[in-house]
Amino acid sequence: MPRRNRVTNDSGHIKIQKRAIPLLLSCITTFPLFSVQSSANSGIDVYPPNWWVGMQNSNVELMLYGDDVADDTVSIAKGDVSVKHSQALDSENYLFVTLDTSNVSAQELVIRLTDSDGTTRDLTYTLEKRAQGSASREGFGPQDAIYLIAPDRYANGNVENDNVKGYGDPADRSFKGGRHGGDIQGIVDNLNYIQDMGFTQIWTMPMLENAMDKYSYHGYSTTDYYKIDPRFGSNDDFIALSTEAKSKGLGIIMDMVLNHIGSNHLWMKDTPSHDWINNNGKFVGTTHKREVLHDPHAVASDIKGFSDGWFVPTMPDLNQRNPHLANYLIQNAIWWVESAGLSGIRVDTYSYPDKAFLSQWTNRIMDEYPNFNIVGEEWSVNPAITAYWQAGSHRHDDYDSALPSVMDFPLQAAVVKALSNDESWNSGFNSVYETLATDFLYGDPNNLVIFPDNHDMSRIFTQLGHDKDKWNMAMTLLLTTRGIPQVFYGTEILMGNEGSEDHGIIRSDFPGGWPSDNDKNAFTGHGLTDDERWAQQRVKGLLQLRKSHPLQFKGLLKHFAPENGVYTYIREANVDSGSGADKSNTHQSDKILVILNKKPVDLPLNKYAEVLSTHQTLTRVSDGISFKTTDTLRLPAMSASVFIVQ
Amino acid sequence: MPRRNRVTNDSGHIKIQKRAIPLLLSCITTFPLFSVQSSANSGIDVYPPNWWVGMQNSNVELMLYGDDVADDTVSIAKGDVSVKHSQALDSENYLFVTLDTSNVSAQELVIRLTDSDGTTRDLTYTLEKRAQGSASREGFGPQDAIYLIAPDRYANGNVENDNVKGYGDPADRSFKGGRHGGDIQGIVDNLNYIQDMGFTQIWTMPMLENAMDKYSYHGYSTTDYYKIDPRFGSNDDFIALSTEAKSKGLGIIMDMVLNHIGSNHLWMKDTPSHDWINNNGKFVGTTHKREVLHDPHAVASDIKGFSDGWFVPTMPDLNQRNPHLANYLIQNAIWWVESAGLSGIRVDTYSYPDKAFLSQWTNRIMDEYPNFNIVGEEWSVNPAITAYWQAGSHRHDDYDSALPSVMDFPLQAAVVKALSNDESWNSGFNSVYETLATDFLYGDPNNLVIFPDNHDMSRIFTQLGHDKDKWNMAMTLLLTTRGIPQVFYGTEILMGNEGSEDHGIIRSDFPGGWPSDNDKNAFTGHGLTDDERWAQQRVKGLLQLRKSHPLQFKGLLKHFAPENGVYTYIREANVDSGSGADKSNTHQSDKILVILNKKPVDLPLNKYAEVLSTHQTLTRVSDGISFKTTDTLRLPAMSASVFIVQ
Repeated sequence: MPRRNRVTNDSGHIKIQKRAIPLLLSCITTFPLFSVQSSANSGIDVYPPNWWVGMQNSNVELMLYGDDVADDTVSIAKGDVSVKHSQALDSENYLFVTLDTSNVSAQELVIRLTDSDGTTRDLTYTLEKRAQGSASREGFGPQDAIYLIAPDRYANGNVENDNVKGYGDPADRSFKGGRHGGDIQGIVDNLNYIQDMGFTQIWTMPMLENAMDKYSYHGYSTTDYYKIDPRFGSNDDFIALSTEAKSKGLGIIMDMVLNHIGSNHLWMKDTPSHDWINNNGKFVGTTHKREVLHDPHAVASDIKGFSDGWFVPTMPDLNQRNPHLANYLIQNAIWWVESAGLSGIRVDTYSYPDKAFLSQWTNRIMDEYPNFNIVGEEWSVNPAITAYWQAGSHRHDDYDSALPSVMDFPLQAAVVKALSNDESWNSGFNSVYETLATDFLYGDPNNLVIFPDNHDMSRIFTQLGHDKDKWNMAMTLLLTTRGIPQVFYGTEILMGNEGSEDHGIIRSDFPGGWPSDNDKNAFTGHGLTDDERWAQQRVKGLLQLRKSHPLQFKGLLKHFAPENGVYTYIREANVDSGSGADKSNTHQSDKILVILNKKPVDLPLNKYAEVLSTHQTLTRVSDGISFKTTDTLRLPAMSASVFIVQ
Repeated sequence: MPRRNRVTNDSGHIKIQKRAIPLLLSCITTFPLFSVQSSANSGIDVYPPNWWVGMQNSNVELMLYGDDVADDTVSIAKGDVSVKHSQALDSENYLFVTLDTSNVSAQELVIRLTDSDGTTRDLTYTLEKRAQGSASREGFGPQDAIYLIAPDRYANGNVENDNVKGYGDPADRSFKGGRHGGDIQGIVDNLNYIQDMGFTQIWTMPMLENAMDKYSYHGYSTTDYYKIDPRFGSNDDFIALSTEAKSKGLGIIMDMVLNHIGSNHLWMKDTPSHDWINNNGKFVGTTHKREVLHDPHAVASDIKGFSDGWFVPTMPDLNQRNPHLANYLIQNAIWWVESAGLSGIRVDTYSYPDKAFLSQWTNRIMDEYPNFNIVGEEWSVNPAITAYWQAGSHRHDDYDSALPSVMDFPLQAAVVKALSNDESWNSGFNSVYETLATDFLYGDPNNLVIFPDNHDMSRIFTQLGHDKDKWNMAMTLLLTTRGIPQVFYGTEILMGNEGSEDHGIIRSDFPGGWPSDNDKNAFTGHGLTDDERWAQQRVKGLLQLRKSHPLQFKGLLKHFAPENGVYTYIREANVDSGSGADKSNTHQSDKILVILNKKPVDLPLNKYAEVLSTHQTLTRVSDGISFKTTDTLRLPAMSASVFIVQ
């Protein structure tokens, strides 16, 4: 591609010249702040901008990007690593250099590039020391509760960065598809709210640079994999968020996009190789027929149509079969985990990239962080499809997925069906029951991420016809059944999207997040309606229950087949596993009993003797009233009752 | 239980004193007719009434039933078998005697029973020689097409047996739930019709004795596991049907009920043991929640509620955990396969019996007949559940099922949804596509039995709103996609059940099967409407195609994701497997192309180049018109087009 394309960058792409790379680890509370990386590497960009020694995989493949770098010879002018491999592709401006860091100490290297005429360019490159405990960090898990935030729509903590020079798509709060100004500082400012509610993890929609002409607010059109979008803040700000969150017991889950980039990415102007972008760099829409990946009867053209098709013309589809691109994406993920002390990754449109690459990507990350967690988005309501991707599932083929978690779309759909349809032998609560009964397909059902709604679908309050009781049933179920609950910001105050399915409406601004939000502030409670305040307290109460009873929520689910519109289950510590081993936990023998019922019912608790027999007292979480396990409970219509059983 | 209960049998149970047991083998055309078993065994009934030498399992456990037989001592007065074990249970009238037949020749034994006072009773018992090829018989398979008949409702070939002395529930053709007089002779009389249509297998609803007070016509309330109900004919008649059918290329699939008996069975009057019938012999309804068998979160009471519950009070639920009952049922199945030359078994309510027993039952039968076929009815539309039972499926647990086939209820439901709902990215033909794409769950999707309807659900014509075009699409699809098609009698002439879901209406009489059916006769075509005649010819045409192209229907399915309401697939010989190895078959390289479309469409066939590229000519099955594979087909709305591609 002509070199001039790099010089004139009219799309808003900003070259990375300098980057702060302090180390942050989720598992330690204090950590050193390393010095800023050497800048101005002779006009050559290096990705990743630094690396670490002591990684499980001691190779790191650097993508060098600079004028005419492809035919340079690579040597180490300073440092004791070796150059294992050097590889040019089609563009004359990229060179892929693999360093072998085995058995070396942290150090600053000088990498020398020598042109054919003998001219040299030197690059400084730092190999950091990993912080203690980095590899063994614990990812989010079943004891957690995740708060999903659309950063542009949550809180505008810094009005100075609403517009940034060199970037288009100016802030416009009146446009549903525009940038509204929310940012990292807005999240930092409200960590106390998130902590007080009882969440323990934050997943934000992507915050990497999206230098797109419009609709850049959502973050799924990456234009730089190594840079936080300046409208959200800096890399330093992101790391500071992670640090501050960690100090409040909140982990950060980063949303990563492996399938596609934004069309303003440098790779579309100066493409590393002819096979970097699927369909020869031209838009061909994906079929979205994920079934083809498993279907024994699929034709080859349908497999290509799904995997190689693009989402939209502004999202060029990456060809991860190119091993250098694959490495780039793998290392980028590790770089963010290591740099920003992540407690997890959420992977966008999980099944759409090349299937073999997905295996490689998950395995490489989990090799580095064996206790980490990654959740993939596979939007299918067929558990046989979602389960296929989870590590440990019982697959028909020998596909090696190391993905610990998937989003439980089947359960989300089942909950809505359960509450929307009348009860019968195969409808109503049976939708939920039958979905959970299919958990035998999953390698680890407890590690699924469950949710009433998310940023890509109608708000649950709207899905349930703005019915408070149904909302309460859905939230109660999804905050107490097996899995890791995720709550979309605003769902805790009954936010809805009546009359529109537009994503910009679904992702409306959280009230109180903007300086001008005087009438209503969900962070303080000011101006909330009684219903909104009740809803917020209900979610908070259930989250507090999770915090006081982690063993139960990491433990077993035992449910009774629905009968006459009553669905009952318990959570209890799994005394056979590690989750029940903590003798110091005074709540270890508690059970959590949940009863959902549609019609008014007098329910003799001895129906549940099988799971309650050794316990005597039930205390209702909502009002603290106690019952005996021999009592008959009188439950009004449309109740969602939660009890601590002791 | 008091002995007098046996003497007075007012429920219609007939003691077996004499039974014909010729051998019939599906794989040989001539076979010896053995002599009738010795009768009047000192008033003692023996089950099974004879056995064979040379079985894989050389033990046979005889259930002896006779006055005060439980405390008798067993010895062999004549013959060289040994008594391996003798076991009494709770009733004084049953004794279970295990003989070891290893390394013995066919012979007539005399088994001697000696009472405590020295009185002896001798029983004659015959060990037959198995016919050659019995063990290696081929069961029905993907090249076949099954005709499902309700014998009471198909044809009344013998009006003399409409009522039989000693049996209640008299014939009454005017009562939808009554016996209408159809019988074995009626089927024999119409084998030519069945053969001419192109069917290759006949599955009849059960014909074992149902000596019930009413609703006995359906056959699912067994009162004698070793006797054909005399209203249908004799054991000899059944064997003659099998013989005659085999001579016309038609196999017989026997419908077996392992889960329950009829409440007039002897076992309810003189129960062998206290644990013979679930729930202590008292009615407790099953929950029908089959999910509990797989659900990792199931409670024990729900598992018991499903497996041990009864269907209805007149169907006592057998406890197959009793090893003698388990053996009885296993040997009974083998006895019928061996005696009547069966080509397959259909198992009623497959998942309801004890799960461990099902493993034992399937393994024992498949050990004896490794190439046999058995299809289980598991009425779930969740392929994860149906697939669980099929041999070779990729299960989460180590359950050992040897069941070769299951009924494909998920596909049946998907076909109805596909044709009832409008097309969209996840509806219309996508329902079928997504269901077939989930075939990766099955050990052998080609060996599933597929069907548009059956005896337990509305007729497909009614399910599709009496729409001929939709019926044609459903029938075309289900006679050409992967699996073994089964057609319910009458479905080929558009029989429906408008206005009633009553099983007695669904199972209405086949026109022409009764001597008085003068106005309309589906066997001859007399009196059929044009639509009915068209439908019959359509089914016949597709069945003939199956007969001319067995390699294709045993072979591969390759389908294209539905697009704009068009669903296209091909069938072709699997040249990588045995199914394509027959070089003598001149049609081996043919492909069968099927196109289903809802709206009118001009379809360029080069869309399907991937599967058609080496072929040049398409010949439409319905009218013989030819096209080139480079043509654009013009298809009218609601077409179901089938082509032979050469």
